[in-house]
Amino acid sequence: MMEKFVAKITVAASEGKKLGVEDPRRIIHSLKVGLAITLVSLFYYFDTLYQGFGVSAMWAVITVVVVFEFSVGATLGRGVNRAIATLLAGSLGVGAHRLANILGEKLEPVFLGFSVFLVVSSVTFIRFHPKLKARFDYGLLIFILTFCLISVSGYRDDEVLKMAHKRLSTILIGGSAAVVVCSFICPIWAGEDLHNLIAGNIENLGIFLEGFGHEYFQTSDGKLLDDKASVDEYKSVLNSKGTEEYLANFAKWEPRHGRFRYRHPWDQYLKIGVLVRECAYRIDALNGYLNSEMKTPAEVRDKIQESCTKMSSESSLALKELALSIKTMSSSSIADPHIVNAKTAAKKLKLLLKSDMREGTDFLEIIPAASVSSLLIEIVSSTVKIADS
Amino acid sequence: MMEKFVAKITVAASEGKKLGVEDPRRIIHSLKVGLAITLVSLFYYFDTLYQGFGVSAMWAVITVVVVFEFSVGATLGRGVNRAIATLLAGSLGVGAHRLANILGEKLEPVFLGFSVFLVVSSVTFIRFHPKLKARFDYGLLIFILTFCLISVSGYRDDEVLKMAHKRLSTILIGGSAAVVVCSFICPIWAGEDLHNLIAGNIENLGIFLEGFGHEYFQTSDGKLLDDKASVDEYKSVLNSKGTEEYLANFAKWEPRHGRFRYRHPWDQYLKIGVLVRECAYRIDALNGYLNSEMKTPAEVRDKIQESCTKMSSESSLALKELALSIKTMSSSSIADPHIVNAKTAAKKLKLLLKSDMREGTDFLEIIPAASVSSLLIEIVSSTVKIADS
Repeated sequence: MMEKFVAKITVAASEGKKLGVEDPRRIIHSLKVGLAITLVSLFYYFDTLYQGFGVSAMWAVITVVVVFEFSVGATLGRGVNRAIATLLAGSLGVGAHRLANILGEKLEPVFLGFSVFLVVSSVTFIRFHPKLKARFDYGLLIFILTFCLISVSGYRDDEVLKMAHKRLSTILIGGSAAVVVCSFICPIWAGEDLHNLIAGNIENLGIFLEGFGHEYFQTSDGKLLDDKASVDEYKSVLNSKGTEEYLANFAKWEPRHGRFRYRHPWDQYLKIGVLVRECAYRIDALNGYLNSEMKTPAEVRDKIQESCTKMSSESSLALKELALSIKTMSSSSIADPHIVNAKTAAKKLKLLLKSDMREGTDFLEIIPAASVSSLLIEIVSSTVKIADS
Repeated sequence: MMEKFVAKITVAASEGKKLGVEDPRRIIHSLKVGLAITLVSLFYYFDTLYQGFGVSAMWAVITVVVVFEFSVGATLGRGVNRAIATLLAGSLGVGAHRLANILGEKLEPVFLGFSVFLVVSSVTFIRFHPKLKARFDYGLLIFILTFCLISVSGYRDDEVLKMAHKRLSTILIGGSAAVVVCSFICPIWAGEDLHNLIAGNIENLGIFLEGFGHEYFQTSDGKLLDDKASVDEYKSVLNSKGTEEYLANFAKWEPRHGRFRYRHPWDQYLKIGVLVRECAYRIDALNGYLNSEMKTPAEVRDKIQESCTKMSSESSLALKELALSIKTMSSSSIADPHIVNAKTAAKKLKLLLKSDMREGTDFLEIIPAASVSSLLIEIVSSTVKIADS
């Protein structure tokens, strides 16, 4: 019983260590959240003792807990969403409340119930709109919340205004505490993450292509087993769409930082991401041939080995150069010669196949893959130039 | 100016109509949320007038707004998360509060600040754990929130207990209102969505393969243009991973409903999803050949046309049968003959190519795709049996 408990604790501790080692920013983030909430909590604590904002100060704590996210963009987005939504819904709620008061005691609950039903239903429906959902989902939720709380509160008119004012100011205090701690103490930028993710994805494809030529023709020089893990890295590219869109959304909220301007063309990254993923699907199909049951005769293999290896290694070099140039944000003319080489190799292979009319079985599949990747490379290099301009 | 405004309204209205037509459940969901919140709001309204739960009743409204989600599974998950987290954090908070009281006035804020920092930082760190994040992320957030609010509140001891009790009961009222309205009025089941998504994905692949044979060999009989849109349907399969995991998570919270038991093997769906996506990558590669610049000589085309068309149409039939059998949850022996036929066609093509040693250019690529899909079909049929057992 005791031993089991100790074993469980050990497992949990080692998992926790792994989480921290994988991305040390997680530990920093946790400490930052702790710091921000402790500050606001103590403010709230002393405030309740000396009767300043009173119970409303609780909203400062709630705001920090709910608004504080991993990256600066996400935190800013939520903070702005919350502030604007509270302001708008607050005024609308006060209006509804006042109108209800004028209508008299009997009609009041009917009118309030009806207006709450109308506002909540329509705002909930608006939340399904894909574009609004991406950027303002949280704001719409807070809009519903604030409207209900204020319009339905049983207070008298002047009390409602005072309460709304208090709540808005405490929310601003909480929101700005979250934003300040998040942006000034070891900030984590969603834009930078997106940038590195895209560059890393391109690099992974390059690494795969580098290993592919050797592995397929089995000309490996012993490093095969070491490379196996890195060759499989490209699989993460296949499903990166969600993460990319998520990060791009947050990045749009971020101000100028480091090498990125405000209004950096984040959508370009998404476009590059789509192209990279298309390339990754081709590569996944290529990878299928590595484990295929069908083997090609050795003589055929030998014939095309040279051009194929050349194509995959040149594409690999080009992709790696591109990844590097994205990382350093420089113009990417270094990759151009590799692209030219890859294209020449592809042409050579095509000629070889046409003249021979032989069984090119699996190899021919490399041509479109390589042409897709070289096409991709061209598009990527142009977009990178746009991004850096 | 006025015209512009009218134009904008028209656009917004047509977009709204599109959202509603695409999935009428969105409208029903909006009305349900409106109903639940109106009910709880009115309860709150009368309650504040007659001084029952007082300000705490506000928590009932907040709970409904935050907990009510599109599917029953999501709502139940959030509700349970919220209730348990509030209970646990509440007791821990009361404990911390009491301990702080014992320590005396000077040490109290130090101890409270320290314990808040410790709890918040560690819980925030735990939220990064992938498994816990998937199912209990919301609960952990609420845990932080409740702990801070209760432990730091400046109330006296007995007041804290009373407050915690009131808040917990109002949260239970709000949560159960949300769950009841969500589950008993036109419920939307995440499990059913997942089930239909997987079946639809398999069907889309089948539709693509049906059209592929005709389109590639250009033996179309005029229906080509009509089919173009449906052929592209498979693209949505490529990026369905996120949605599938999301739905499976919610489905795990759902009780027995319709044809699904509680603890239905939802993970099986994810496994099928992975296989379906692998097949979709192959199909995407195949699709590349439709628009490829490289054309194959007509004589070669004619040779292999029969087996290729056979393979793609038989795989298509098998996939469609599978989709149907998943939909109706029956065992899927109807698909078996098609799989056998597809395999025979693949074997025939292999022989043809071996004996002729001719340029099989793009066609050969169909073999692995077909073998992958037939492999997939076998795996799928076995998993379906498990799922239905």
